[in-house]
Amino acid sequence: MKSMKALYFPELHKIELRQVEKPALKDENDVIVKITLTTICGSDLHIIHGAIPSKPGFVLGHEYVGVIEEVGSAVKNFQKGDRVIGPPVPFCGKCDSCHAGDYAHCNAGIHGSSCHLWGTHAEYMRVPNAEACLVHVPDELSDEDVIFTADILSTGYSAVMQAKVKPLDTVVIFGAGPVGLSALAAAKLYSPREIILVGRKDKFRLNVGKKIGATDIIVSSEEDVISTIKKLTNGRGADVAIDAVGVEPTIQQAVRCVGINGRVSVVGISGANVTLPLGEVFFNNISIDMGLGDIGHVKYLMNLIKEKFIDLSPLITHRMRLDEIEEAFKLFENRNEDVLKILVKP
Amino acid sequence: MKSMKALYFPELHKIELRQVEKPALKDENDVIVKITLTTICGSDLHIIHGAIPSKPGFVLGHEYVGVIEEVGSAVKNFQKGDRVIGPPVPFCGKCDSCHAGDYAHCNAGIHGSSCHLWGTHAEYMRVPNAEACLVHVPDELSDEDVIFTADILSTGYSAVMQAKVKPLDTVVIFGAGPVGLSALAAAKLYSPREIILVGRKDKFRLNVGKKIGATDIIVSSEEDVISTIKKLTNGRGADVAIDAVGVEPTIQQAVRCVGINGRVSVVGISGANVTLPLGEVFFNNISIDMGLGDIGHVKYLMNLIKEKFIDLSPLITHRMRLDEIEEAFKLFENRNEDVLKILVKP
Repeated sequence: MKSMKALYFPELHKIELRQVEKPALKDENDVIVKITLTTICGSDLHIIHGAIPSKPGFVLGHEYVGVIEEVGSAVKNFQKGDRVIGPPVPFCGKCDSCHAGDYAHCNAGIHGSSCHLWGTHAEYMRVPNAEACLVHVPDELSDEDVIFTADILSTGYSAVMQAKVKPLDTVVIFGAGPVGLSALAAAKLYSPREIILVGRKDKFRLNVGKKIGATDIIVSSEEDVISTIKKLTNGRGADVAIDAVGVEPTIQQAVRCVGINGRVSVVGISGANVTLPLGEVFFNNISIDMGLGDIGHVKYLMNLIKEKFIDLSPLITHRMRLDEIEEAFKLFENRNEDVLKILVKP
Repeated sequence: MKSMKALYFPELHKIELRQVEKPALKDENDVIVKITLTTICGSDLHIIHGAIPSKPGFVLGHEYVGVIEEVGSAVKNFQKGDRVIGPPVPFCGKCDSCHAGDYAHCNAGIHGSSCHLWGTHAEYMRVPNAEACLVHVPDELSDEDVIFTADILSTGYSAVMQAKVKPLDTVVIFGAGPVGLSALAAAKLYSPREIILVGRKDKFRLNVGKKIGATDIIVSSEEDVISTIKKLTNGRGADVAIDAVGVEPTIQQAVRCVGINGRVSVVGISGANVTLPLGEVFFNNISIDMGLGDIGHVKYLMNLIKEKFIDLSPLITHRMRLDEIEEAFKLFENRNEDVLKILVKP
């Protein structure tokens, strides 16, 4: 039995870098990918601590770039040595959801979230449905250039699509984490009048937001968010609010900060019940969209990066080795220095 | 000073049929309409009891058909004797909202909701912005044929538009009142697979729903609404839920009864805070739209009635005289017999 190094999730609240069985092909549509870059996501923490429920006993991680190591007999478009990127959900391309273009709801599962589909924080990973879900990475782009396209940028881009951001809009983004900043980068392409970034007292993250294109910054602990937005919009309220946090206070603010016909998009994963002030906002005819990002646009998003319409390199704050991944998770979780995205090289 | 009979709102929780000043032209764009038909709406009760806050001291009512009695000097398209219908909000056609086609948010006010704009439960009514907001009633259609088009059918139709009802959809409608039944009539035109009507134990209203086109009926006090809908849809959940009630339990059920990519439209006027199970529905990528109906389609809706695509006559349960309007309100409010819409003839 061949083995490899991987970040294993043995029980709730625990992670462990250990030797595990190296994955093998199980189906003629599988490939084995040698992971060349992986990155830590907030959802990893949700899984580790049970906010996204799962039965422990698997390798974590769902954002990656890699090189094909081995191909199943039915895989024709990929060969050993091809550089590829794939989505968190290795969608099949054949089910009803996939046929409707709704790849995120394919029930292929999510890498690094169950024992059926191990994750990317490893030397190797088995990817099912390879021809449907994998995309070749263009030679002009490095692993670092594209690593965010399949998850956080897909989500940020979806938030902007859902909210139908259009020229002259005032857009408010709640959350200066990786998804909020990706939404900011995507929103900027639609020529909004202003993009107001709302975050906690974290000067580093808010400054990255400014670099990416925020026109105004609101520190939620220091200012009244709603009245500041009303002031910035001459009382009108915003056109669009994107919530990339997923907790009750920010979702409430998102709903309250928009004006008549305001569009609210919730892409922060929302844990529980949320009380919304419908009595207050009903007559504003607002719309609220929520859910998983659309993962069907990875090629397009890579093109945006290639053509320099989007640059998410300011999000990369750390580069570490797989050997150091336990420490990387501590850093990411405790945020005791300026952390946004930690890239990990196996 | 000329006087007329009208239903006056003198103080909270009170109404009174009394002689009031007959309205006169105030602006060159005004007309005076002799009301030939008016009808009692649930919103009247919201105003009377303060759920829609207002300062008492005006004539109630906002749904009407009438005949032009007098025209302001700038009004060219209407003359004395023309039969007309107008929307609850006599929109100006000139403001930013109107230019965007969002007539319901014109701040012209709502008939019968403030002392600035008296209502339809009267012999006469002043209508501002006449050329923008009034529509001629075709000769082929009676007052009764068209009376619902400007308010409840506009709202029901908007619910269907907002929810993007499409062929093969499973549509659930919460509320078998006039708005819910209007939404049902409009939804039917889009060839849904089924329309499930959810109502309280009110056999009369639910039977009217069946007559209009409901394929299934759920009595919310007798069955578990969500599990019945899941059963009817083989576990998939509905595609669309329309809430025409506006209270927390039905809005929660609307959000929970739809499946992946479900669309929820809330057109019941929602009073207060509503707690939504976002943790439960987030991954379903649902959308929630809410608010006032679009009142810009009265001509189109009259055409649907003329061509017999929609027939709301089963909603008419009572025909009374203005003299009897206090009693009519008691009937409407206490529902101690089978009441849906009460038409009142001044």
